[in-house]
Amino acid sequence: MFAELAEKGIKARLAARRLGALDTATKNHTLKCMADTLMQREPEILSANDHDIDAGQEAGLSEALLDRLLLTIHRLESIANDVLAVASLPDPVGETFDARTLPNGLRIGKRRVPVGVIGVIYESRPNVTVDISALCLKSGNAAILRGGKEAVHTNRALAAAIAEACERSGAPQDAIQLIQSQDRALVKEMLTANRYIDMIIPRGGASLHRFALQNASIPVITGGIGICHAYVDESADPAKVIPIVHNAKVQRPTVCNALDTLLIHHRVAADLLPRIADDLARAGVELRCEPRSLEILMGHPAARSAGPADFDTEFLSLVLAVKVVDSLDEALDHIYQHSTQHSDVILTENYSHAMRFVNEVDSAVVYVNASTRFTDGGQFGLGAEVAVSTQRLHARGPMGLKELTTYKWVIFGEGQVRE
Amino acid sequence: MFAELAEKGIKARLAARRLGALDTATKNHTLKCMADTLMQREPEILSANDHDIDAGQEAGLSEALLDRLLLTIHRLESIANDVLAVASLPDPVGETFDARTLPNGLRIGKRRVPVGVIGVIYESRPNVTVDISALCLKSGNAAILRGGKEAVHTNRALAAAIAEACERSGAPQDAIQLIQSQDRALVKEMLTANRYIDMIIPRGGASLHRFALQNASIPVITGGIGICHAYVDESADPAKVIPIVHNAKVQRPTVCNALDTLLIHHRVAADLLPRIADDLARAGVELRCEPRSLEILMGHPAARSAGPADFDTEFLSLVLAVKVVDSLDEALDHIYQHSTQHSDVILTENYSHAMRFVNEVDSAVVYVNASTRFTDGGQFGLGAEVAVSTQRLHARGPMGLKELTTYKWVIFGEGQVRE
Repeated sequence: MFAELAEKGIKARLAARRLGALDTATKNHTLKCMADTLMQREPEILSANDHDIDAGQEAGLSEALLDRLLLTIHRLESIANDVLAVASLPDPVGETFDARTLPNGLRIGKRRVPVGVIGVIYESRPNVTVDISALCLKSGNAAILRGGKEAVHTNRALAAAIAEACERSGAPQDAIQLIQSQDRALVKEMLTANRYIDMIIPRGGASLHRFALQNASIPVITGGIGICHAYVDESADPAKVIPIVHNAKVQRPTVCNALDTLLIHHRVAADLLPRIADDLARAGVELRCEPRSLEILMGHPAARSAGPADFDTEFLSLVLAVKVVDSLDEALDHIYQHSTQHSDVILTENYSHAMRFVNEVDSAVVYVNASTRFTDGGQFGLGAEVAVSTQRLHARGPMGLKELTTYKWVIFGEGQVRE
Repeated sequence: MFAELAEKGIKARLAARRLGALDTATKNHTLKCMADTLMQREPEILSANDHDIDAGQEAGLSEALLDRLLLTIHRLESIANDVLAVASLPDPVGETFDARTLPNGLRIGKRRVPVGVIGVIYESRPNVTVDISALCLKSGNAAILRGGKEAVHTNRALAAAIAEACERSGAPQDAIQLIQSQDRALVKEMLTANRYIDMIIPRGGASLHRFALQNASIPVITGGIGICHAYVDESADPAKVIPIVHNAKVQRPTVCNALDTLLIHHRVAADLLPRIADDLARAGVELRCEPRSLEILMGHPAARSAGPADFDTEFLSLVLAVKVVDSLDEALDHIYQHSTQHSDVILTENYSHAMRFVNEVDSAVVYVNASTRFTDGGQFGLGAEVAVSTQRLHARGPMGLKELTTYKWVIFGEGQVRE
């Protein structure tokens, strides 16, 4: 094992033991110190970021990537404010639930405790460094962070500020540790370092998630990849359909909860599909149509013929795959076969169809008559979002602070023994 | 991939889709059919078992192993009754929780759904075949079972009875499938068959759990391995200490929640340790003592010197490691270093020490003044026990039917879009 990983793993375990016992006031104080320190160290953080941006330009990074990498005074302020927002959230740790007294008098209950050590593997966005550190601290977890090589100087400057804040405020200095090595082999080792890490959160694109899932023996929170479907039922209310499809596709097309596939019942397709297409075309959306929908949209400037991969693609752009179906059953089968189990919606006024859709579509979030864009920790009222899980265990959909915890059973007795 | 695994994986996915939609009455009817079919097929099940027992005797299996393998009319009846008991438990699937209405009018909640496909890898006990099948069916999960080669004929006969019961009662015939191949390489493939299996439950000894954990990319419910500690505090009530230590060590020493290590405060050791030793010696317990406790028990017939591995051993027999400590802190440190995070208990009348112990010991179950033997799904009122988890995510401690489920978010809207 890489010496750096083993060393930081041991320190993280010790830090986690102390973090689990910190009270909420101390943790909030640390978060406030963190926000302060980030602003105090602004000159050195921005200069480290300049360094990364220069290197990125030399390496020929795209404008989009450089923009993700860029910190400004304004962006740093906004990152520091996000830390303060985490401080103001309720602390999930310590909550007792499922408590009861057994017939033999044992008082039994579950108590919420931190997961332990969280391993975070991410790409070039430096805000993740601070964001995930604040969430881990608030939930009493230690973290081992491995950021992308493009942001290496920025991440080091941010991690130094975080460590200083921890040290100054009574939190363990090793609560949040940044892996310095940029060796890809270390990432692979992180994924099987079960002794040191309890949960892996990959933050990035589909290939990072796949890599983590395939190589990890530690539980991985896979997610963030959404091929989202809207099914427009025969009975759908056109007054709802057009705004919802528009919002789900256009409002922010680059994110995982944006719409990718439109399924539409054949009885309403001839009327509705051209109206949907007109609306989307005005927003610059390109429609990738299978033959029946292409026939209806024949000659429409936004319509193209769908390729074989279009119903299995998360577009992350102004592209929508379109298909006419003969029934709710055909829509359910299509979703079953192509879903990434993220967010899917039925547009219908038919009660039984609405119920069948929410019963039978097995995605993290299933909607009736609402935009898939609501799949988000903030929108769901969780206060913060750690990730959107599309795996099945531990947590599904938007994950907040609570989803960075687990529980232990606490049992108070008076001498009870088992018969 | 082994053709058998891929084929059964595909069938399991299809079965899981249907199982998730079955109502409770149908599932209970299937369980009743299962109990009936097991009794109707008794002659052929017992004759298959004879076959396994004969083969086991020829292969020189130990008496203990042969006894685990053996089915009798009485044991088969008891297995069938356990299936009926599962039918009588409440169905966890469909429960709505954390439901609320957001300010924008969206009605949002979590709905409990089956995990999907459970992979079970177990050793020679044929009762596991039926037991886990009943629990998976009741919770709406499909299962792929891989039993030990010693029980291969018995398991085939049991699986045939289960498949017949499913077919006759409206459940998918492929709900429960038994892997026929005895190739060890297939087990390794099962652990990474993420497309087909959502959760792996190993049922067996420590080496099976380690193998599963090291080789799986699917989430594994590790557990069942308990190095359980009792710490006798300075203020412990002797009237509680002796019965609890006795019960935890002696009542059923072969199971994971039995006591392995006794830590005792030096101020009470001279008085209490000989009394504990006398009591345990009468039950045939051997004490493995570090130097300070050996000094106190010098010449006691049950006392031996502890070897270097004795504080890291799950004895599963009438052996107890014993250590004198100077403080609660030393006890907490010892537990931190040697725990398998299963079940640990403090015996104390000191309020602050009790609170510190339950706060700081991070095990699945933490007790004050009660026997560790209570760590059990039945004892905790869960109705049935799938496993005792000592991993941290999804579920800790005794797992019942609810822990074989996950949730999805269900959202009812009236045309809401995101601003």
